[in-house]
Amino acid sequence: MDADLVPRLEALYKQVAAPFVQSLGLRIVSVEKDVSVMALPVMPHLVHGGGVLCGQAMLATADIAMVLGLAAWFGGFRPMTTVQLQTTFLRPVPADTAEVTVTCRILRCGKTLAFGEIDMTLPDGKLVAQSTTTYALL
Amino acid sequence: MDADLVPRLEALYKQVAAPFVQSLGLRIVSVEKDVSVMALPVMPHLVHGGGVLCGQAMLATADIAMVLGLAAWFGGFRPMTTVQLQTTFLRPVPADTAEVTVTCRILRCGKTLAFGEIDMTLPDGKLVAQSTTTYALL
Amino acid sequence: MDADLVPRLEALYKQVAAPFVQSLGLRIVSVEKDVSVMALPVMPHLVHGGGVLCGQAMLATADIAMVLGLAAWFGGFRPMTTVQLQTTFLRPVPADTAEVTVTCRILRCGKTLAFGEIDMTLPDGKLVAQSTTTYALL
Amino acid sequence: MDADLVPRLEALYKQVAAPFVQSLGLRIVSVEKDVSVMALPVMPHLVHGGGVLCGQAMLATADIAMVLGLAAWFGGFRPMTTVQLQTTFLRPVPADTAEVTVTCRILRCGKTLAFGEIDMTLPDGKLVAQSTTTYALL
Repeated sequence: MDADLVPRLEALYKQVAAPFVQSLGLRIVSVEKDVSVMALPVMPHLVHGGGVLCGQAMLATADIAMVLGLAAWFGGFRPMTTVQLQTTFLRPVPADTAEVTVTCRILRCGKTLAFGEIDMTLPDGKLVAQSTTTYALL
Repeated sequence: MDADLVPRLEALYKQVAAPFVQSLGLRIVSVEKDVSVMALPVMPHLVHGGGVLCGQAMLATADIAMVLGLAAWFGGFRPMTTVQLQTTFLRPVPADTAEVTVTCRILRCGKTLAFGEIDMTLPDGKLVAQSTTTYALL
Repeated sequence: MDADLVPRLEALYKQVAAPFVQSLGLRIVSVEKDVSVMALPVMPHLVHGGGVLCGQAMLATADIAMVLGLAAWFGGFRPMTTVQLQTTFLRPVPADTAEVTVTCRILRCGKTLAFGEIDMTLPDGKLVAQSTTTYALL
Repeated sequence: MDADLVPRLEALYKQVAAPFVQSLGLRIVSVEKDVSVMALPVMPHLVHGGGVLCGQAMLATADIAMVLGLAAWFGGFRPMTTVQLQTTFLRPVPADTAEVTVTCRILRCGKTLAFGEIDMTLPDGKLVAQSTTTYALL
């Protein structure tokens, strides 16, 4: 991997993502061609009245994680669009959790379609949400 | 329906949803027991670098729409959790679109599980995104 | 619609579908460009030990229904492949049900991707399963 | 694991699954509490006119694999029903493939809901289909 891929993905996140998505405060942890790891900090504005991380933040995170994961795969940004995103929620994330670890794996990247899987885990490794997604490469 | 169900759902949205989700600025348009209609204004902070409404805003909207749609079904808030949300994106939403219409239909509401469908359409009626979702009633 | 589209879809089902899928015994009920209706007879070999129509028959039906629905859209067979199929099961189908009605709607058909929705209902109109699906046109 | 769990799952497959599903000819390869491996032989009646394993056989396999995987988890059959199954198809399976390997992982098993993931791979290890599923325990 390019030594500067992490800062380039960080720049991409700040320049291309909508401000709504930037407000998630995602941090790029590590990047390989087919596996990118990010961290989602459980900030107060992401917590709902029930005292847990809102599912909407996880949905938005899954989608932007795949955009960044595909940028890692291609070594830079490429125009693309989400075709489909399926997310299953397995456990709540307590509000006092520091970060959720977001692992995006590129399962296949063809000429026109790319397939990925995004796992979100608690600090103890327990799976809280799992997404599978399809992207169209433009 | 109770005449005051629209203001009660609006209050619920402001009190229970995470600030991240409140920033979507959803408006409740009409409410029946099994069909709730909302409007998502295409505000600048929801638009990404490609000049269209970001998919993440639509994902977050689909999820909160079902929470509100189930509150309409039950005549008030009930604790629940998203089990699964699948969204397909059919068309981009140009940044100069005023609003996306969000229609949430409760397909079935049993003792422990509820099923819904959320359609998002452009002002000309074209479908831009469709979600199906399962909720666990607590 | 061509007057002979129903027999042509029936021929397609018998010639192109795998024998495993032909064993579902699907009947074409009516065909329009964007909505095709089929009937799935609840035959004994489709019923599992719990005394209800097996979900696997409904999954297989949803997938072939979209193939036939797209053939109706195009006025004939076109090579394609399933990208993704999501199915939610809302109610069991008792073994003594005569038929499940299968309604396939083409939600969008672009140059490379097609999107559809398949509803399955009991004779009393109750929804038993709902699928959303994405196909790649080859 | 009980030494006799493989034959017990085989018996379950033959006694509880619908004949339609038995016709898939699934073979139990190995069983652990949370990971069950099966093999789907690519038999002629599962191949469609395009000369590849039909997706419908993979959909049906994913669903029965989770039933068997949950029986492995519980050490025996338990009544349950599929809530939702999402499958993504990544590559075609050529008709001359001997077997598809089906790996079912139980991601979480709670009191009322169970979550699983089913991967299908070619003999060379390439992923051909991936499913995520939710079951309701009765």
